[in-house]
Amino acid sequence: MARGNPRAPVSDDGSMSVYVLAVDAGGSNTRALVLDPTGLVLGVGRAASGNPTSGGIEAAVTSIAAAAAAALPTVPSGSVEIAGTVVMAGEQTSTFTTQLGERLAGLGVSRVTLSPDLVGIFGSGTWSADGYALIAGTGSVAGRVRDGRLDRVVGGRGWLLGDAGSGFWLGHRAARAVISALDGQGPPTELTELILAAVAIRGDLTTPTGRSTALRQLISALYARRPVSLAEFAPLLFGVPEDPVAAEILLAGARALADLVAAVWVADEPGPLVVGGSVVTRGWLGAPPAVRERLGLAVGDAPVVPVVDGVIGAAVAGLRQSGVEVDEARFRRLQAAVTEATI
Amino acid sequence: MARGNPRAPVSDDGSMSVYVLAVDAGGSNTRALVLDPTGLVLGVGRAASGNPTSGGIEAAVTSIAAAAAAALPTVPSGSVEIAGTVVMAGEQTSTFTTQLGERLAGLGVSRVTLSPDLVGIFGSGTWSADGYALIAGTGSVAGRVRDGRLDRVVGGRGWLLGDAGSGFWLGHRAARAVISALDGQGPPTELTELILAAVAIRGDLTTPTGRSTALRQLISALYARRPVSLAEFAPLLFGVPEDPVAAEILLAGARALADLVAAVWVADEPGPLVVGGSVVTRGWLGAPPAVRERLGLAVGDAPVVPVVDGVIGAAVAGLRQSGVEVDEARFRRLQAAVTEATI
Repeated sequence: MARGNPRAPVSDDGSMSVYVLAVDAGGSNTRALVLDPTGLVLGVGRAASGNPTSGGIEAAVTSIAAAAAAALPTVPSGSVEIAGTVVMAGEQTSTFTTQLGERLAGLGVSRVTLSPDLVGIFGSGTWSADGYALIAGTGSVAGRVRDGRLDRVVGGRGWLLGDAGSGFWLGHRAARAVISALDGQGPPTELTELILAAVAIRGDLTTPTGRSTALRQLISALYARRPVSLAEFAPLLFGVPEDPVAAEILLAGARALADLVAAVWVADEPGPLVVGGSVVTRGWLGAPPAVRERLGLAVGDAPVVPVVDGVIGAAVAGLRQSGVEVDEARFRRLQAAVTEATI
Repeated sequence: MARGNPRAPVSDDGSMSVYVLAVDAGGSNTRALVLDPTGLVLGVGRAASGNPTSGGIEAAVTSIAAAAAAALPTVPSGSVEIAGTVVMAGEQTSTFTTQLGERLAGLGVSRVTLSPDLVGIFGSGTWSADGYALIAGTGSVAGRVRDGRLDRVVGGRGWLLGDAGSGFWLGHRAARAVISALDGQGPPTELTELILAAVAIRGDLTTPTGRSTALRQLISALYARRPVSLAEFAPLLFGVPEDPVAAEILLAGARALADLVAAVWVADEPGPLVVGGSVVTRGWLGAPPAVRERLGLAVGDAPVVPVVDGVIGAAVAGLRQSGVEVDEARFRRLQAAVTEATI
């Protein structure tokens, strides 16, 4: 007999069980998990970038489907319903949503819910229904979660119009600083050699001619790339954090991220701050303590929880949508299972 | 008998006379002049943008040829040599140079010299062989001229990599400030209404829903345009110079232009500073005195000479290349003639 909740994953009378396909479609890669109705991880999959804004709709749909296909064969055949939850950055066009739905339907996924990356990151770090999330990868965005729903979002405006403190923002400033240095307008910086090496330009910087040749080549090389690829220079800053030019950029980036968190923070509503994205996790949190402490997020006593990506959060959202309660115990088991599955 | 100087424009023995076609190929429009060997203005022409980086090579070549064609029929037919001097921003590809040379050859122009826009602007404001030039239009660049040659250039790196204080730079900051204001992250500003109106977005900004709808529409509208078109918002700042957000952006822009001039300035080599580009001439110098004085260029007692464009400088360069001396008297006559010819 069904239990009243029409979404109950396990029925007593042999009707359909709802399995969950959880996907984090990131700008660098895509991770997928398949869970049974109790939250047990059955399968995992990985593929290239699943974000349509970075590589186009077709490529994104193909990646997501590839990661899903790798994870799905583990679902027992028979009368099983599979609900997909995909977390990703940016607003999605209806073309993308339709194509993704059709492709996943071909794999047996009956409905697909798209959620913002903030939902994935937040749910990957806590089982709480209230708190905050900050992502700083290529872009940057912060959000407040109340009663399990995204209540306020600040940032996430893309490389041209915002995203202060993000990888693009840091890399862009690094590139501009190097060009100023080569131009003789700005102070010399260790970043010059690093960025010239990164774009494979060799110049004899000890002569004015060599400098101006390097400058011209660097400008041409950078305009030949997609603007957003300047984000690739962000890690270079963390490599020379004591260089005065790099230090100033890092400090400004840290302030920008703190401002982003402050814009969503409510003083009497403390909650965990879950942080994700390469600039936070690999850059700031991966740096030596002296550098790391420059990132003052001003969250008082609230715990700051770093997460690798949003795939656990996608799973949590999928389970909850299917009527499964995710409490601390289930969350911890899920976290342990995903960490164990080397995907 | 020829006079020894092979470029002598007027010969005694009936050999070829060199006429000059001078062109300023700008990002908004192209102006052309034709001068006889004594510097007398014979014809004028005007066409759309002649800059290949803004509208492509084919369109630029067509515009330059159209402006030239309008000016050239005034050259007396017969054994006449026409030398072309084109001033323009940015580095030119060999494809552009070749196509332009071929197209102008079809109009009877025997050789074409391309020169940087700084040369055109400088020569449009002074007959001196030494001094400085600053251009702030869509981009920004400053240069020092010594012995009639461009000796040092700082800036001119394009919208993505530099050009602080330029139209793009100002408009970009204005757009970001408006998005921050709509987002609730930044302070409110009068720029919001102005920019929303400029991109034809109507939103009821008194409600959170109206604000977020306007925000989403604005972000979509701006990403749908070419990034460099953000320069169109620069004039809006000069319309509300007392708005605190606009004032801060303008002040930062003024400092950036002062830095650009400082980077090419040599203390014991005073000289006129010739300034051009819409941000300087229409923006800063067109503003009321209280706003105008915020632009402190720190050039001491050196005269600051604003010019409309670089076509006179192109003519001066063309005449000098043809062996014609351009002293103060000839310069003033040329200036008066071009001002008189409403082109």
